[in-house]
Amino acid sequence: MKEAFEFYLPVRLIFGPGKAETLGKEAARYGKKALIVTGRSSTKKSGLLNRAVKLLEKEGVQADIFDKAEPNPLASTVRKGAEMAKSQKSQVILGLGGGSIMDCAKAIAFSACNPGDIFEYIYGKRQGKTALPLILVPTTCGTGSEGNGFAVLTEDETRDKKALKSGLIFAKTAIVDPELMTTMPRQVLAPVGFDALCHCMEAYLSKNGSQLTNILSLYGIRLISKSLPLVYRDGADLRNWKNLSLGSTLGGMVIGLAGTTAPHGLEHPASGLRNITHGRGLAALTPVISRHSIAAAPGKYAQISRVLGGKDENDCVGRIEQLLDSIDLKTSLSGEGVREEDLTWMAENACRVSESNLQNHPKIFTQEEILKIYQEAF
Amino acid sequence: MKEAFEFYLPVRLIFGPGKAETLGKEAARYGKKALIVTGRSSTKKSGLLNRAVKLLEKEGVQADIFDKAEPNPLASTVRKGAEMAKSQKSQVILGLGGGSIMDCAKAIAFSACNPGDIFEYIYGKRQGKTALPLILVPTTCGTGSEGNGFAVLTEDETRDKKALKSGLIFAKTAIVDPELMTTMPRQVLAPVGFDALCHCMEAYLSKNGSQLTNILSLYGIRLISKSLPLVYRDGADLRNWKNLSLGSTLGGMVIGLAGTTAPHGLEHPASGLRNITHGRGLAALTPVISRHSIAAAPGKYAQISRVLGGKDENDCVGRIEQLLDSIDLKTSLSGEGVREEDLTWMAENACRVSESNLQNHPKIFTQEEILKIYQEAF
Repeated sequence: MKEAFEFYLPVRLIFGPGKAETLGKEAARYGKKALIVTGRSSTKKSGLLNRAVKLLEKEGVQADIFDKAEPNPLASTVRKGAEMAKSQKSQVILGLGGGSIMDCAKAIAFSACNPGDIFEYIYGKRQGKTALPLILVPTTCGTGSEGNGFAVLTEDETRDKKALKSGLIFAKTAIVDPELMTTMPRQVLAPVGFDALCHCMEAYLSKNGSQLTNILSLYGIRLISKSLPLVYRDGADLRNWKNLSLGSTLGGMVIGLAGTTAPHGLEHPASGLRNITHGRGLAALTPVISRHSIAAAPGKYAQISRVLGGKDENDCVGRIEQLLDSIDLKTSLSGEGVREEDLTWMAENACRVSESNLQNHPKIFTQEEILKIYQEAF
Repeated sequence: MKEAFEFYLPVRLIFGPGKAETLGKEAARYGKKALIVTGRSSTKKSGLLNRAVKLLEKEGVQADIFDKAEPNPLASTVRKGAEMAKSQKSQVILGLGGGSIMDCAKAIAFSACNPGDIFEYIYGKRQGKTALPLILVPTTCGTGSEGNGFAVLTEDETRDKKALKSGLIFAKTAIVDPELMTTMPRQVLAPVGFDALCHCMEAYLSKNGSQLTNILSLYGIRLISKSLPLVYRDGADLRNWKNLSLGSTLGGMVIGLAGTTAPHGLEHPASGLRNITHGRGLAALTPVISRHSIAAAPGKYAQISRVLGGKDENDCVGRIEQLLDSIDLKTSLSGEGVREEDLTWMAENACRVSESNLQNHPKIFTQEEILKIYQEAF
C-alpha cells in the first residue's frame, strides 16, 4: 500500500434502476451530434439502441451509429470508428454495451482527436492532447470500464492486448442502470461478474493501492461475491442486480486508481492470442496464481477470504473455487481453446506486455514461474 | 438511503506527507498569475506562506496575496478578495489555511467570475456560470472543504450563515499534506477534528446518502475516532495525523455528496450570530440532538456506536460524550457565549436557513422541538 497517493475519479456516476432514461439529457450537454458506439446485435435485440436514439432525438441530438465494436476490440475497428466520428463531425460519443464496446467507444473518442496509430499512445511513444466527450451506458456488469480511464485493445498483427491509459478517456457521465443488466444471458453473466470480482481483488492486492482504494475494493468484493451467485441462480430480485452493478462499477474505479495484478496480466496474452472470453480466462488462472502468491501477502489474502466467507488465507483459494463452482465457471486454459504450444509464447508475451501488472502483484514472478502457472492452469 | 444516486467527485486529491511541495506545479497548470488566499497570521508564522510563494515562483507563477480571510468568513471579505483577483488578473486561486480560509478562497474564485451579491447565488436567485480554477491546501484537518463544492459564508447584515453549493467551486487539486497539520494548537485541533467526525456521522445519517457515501462515512468515523484522541494527547506519531487528515478529507467529500443533517443545521445559527467556534458549537449540540433522534434511526446509530467502540444505539450518545471528554471538548451553548435571549431567534433562523439539513435528518424537528434542543444544550 502506498503511503502517499493520488485519488482522481472525475466521472459523474448516475446510478439506479431506470436511469438510462437520462442519457439524452446527459449527451445534450456536449453537443447536437452524437455517435453511438455499440455491438452488432444485443442492443438491437433488447431495443436499447432504438430507445437511445429516441432519447437523443427528444433532446435535439442527432445520432449516427457505429455498430461494429466486437469482443476484444481491434485497433483497426477503432480506426474505422474514429474515421466515422470525424466525417460525421460527432461532438459526443455514446458507448452502449458491455466492456469491449465501452473500451471501443473510449478509444474512438480518443482517436478522433489524436492522429496516428493508437498503439503508439498505448506504448507511451506519443501523448494524447484531448478527446471527444464520452457518455457510457454499460449493459453488462463486469469490466467497470465506465469507472476508469482504461481502454483495452488488441493490435491486429501482433495480437498484443494492452490498455490505453489516459485521463482523457474518463466518461463525462457513466449511467449505470441495473435494469439494463437483467437481460444478460447466464453464460455472459458468469464471466463478466467474475471479471468484476477479480478487479476488486486485484486492486486490493496491488502494491499501488491506497487506504481509499482498499476500502472500496473490499466493499466491491462483498457486493459481488454475495450478489453474483444469487442473480446467476435466479435473476428475479432487482436488489441483487443493483449490488452486482455497483460492485462492478466500483471494480472499474479501483483498478483505474490502483491497477490490476498478475491474473489480468497473465490473462491478456491468452485472450489476445485465442480470442477467448476474458472472464473465463481469469477463472482458469486466478486460483492457480493465488495459490502461488498467498505467502507473499498472507494478511491480504486472509482478508479477502473472510469477505468471501472463509477463515484465513489458507482457505482463500477454496473460497474462490467455491464461488466459481456456484456460477459454473470452473475451467482451464485448454478448456478455453489455448493450445499447449501457445504457453511459451504467452509467458514471453506476458513479461513484455503486462510488466506493470506483474510489478503491482504481491509476488514478482519470473518468466519461468509464469510458464509453470500457465502449465498448471492448462 | 437513496436507491438511485449521483456520485461526482472531480477533485484530484494528492495525499501524503511532504506533498505540499507539489503546489507550485499544480498551480502552474492553470496560469502564470496566482492569488494566494490565506489568513492573517498562522501561515506566516509557520513559514508556509513564504514556502508557497517560492514554490510558485520556481514554476514561473507570480503570486499576489490576499491575507484577510477570517474565521466564519463574511460576504464583504469575499467581495474584497474577488476585487483583488479581478484587478490583479489572477488566473488561479490558491487557498492556504483552515476551513474558513478555503471557503473564502472558493467564494473568491466564484465571485471573481459571477457579478453581484454572492448570497443571491446562495439562495438560488442567480446561477453561476464559471469560476477561477482552485488549488486548496488545508492546514487543519476539520472542514474537509478541500473535498467538496461548498463554501460556508456569513452575510454581514443578517448574520445568515449558509453554504454556497456549486460544482464550480470544487478544487481542481486538493493537496492534503498531514505534515502541515502537526503544528495545529490543541485548542484548534479538538473542535476541527470533532467537526470532521460530525461530517462523517451526519453524511451517514443523511436521507440523501447512498451505499457509497455510507461506506466512506463509516470509514471516516473509524479513522477519526481512533486518531483524534491519540494526536490530541501526543502528536508525535505521523501515522495518526495521516489517518485524521484522510478522515477529515473523506468527511468533506461525503457531506458534499450526502449533505449534513441537524447538528450542522442547528449549529450555523449559533456561530453565525455569536461568532463562536463551529466545532465547539457542534460539541454542545450533537449529543442532545442524537438523544432526540435515535428512535428514528436505531440501526444507523447502533452502527455508529459500534465503530466508536460501543454496543448498540443505546450507548451511542455515551460514546460520543466519551470522545468529547477525551479531547476536553464537553461544552454547552452558554459556555460558548450564546445568550438565553438568542435561542428563539436561533430556532427561527435554523428553520429558515437550514431547511435542507433539517430535511436530511432522520427525524424531522418542529421549530418548537428545535427550541427545546437549544434549551437543553444551553
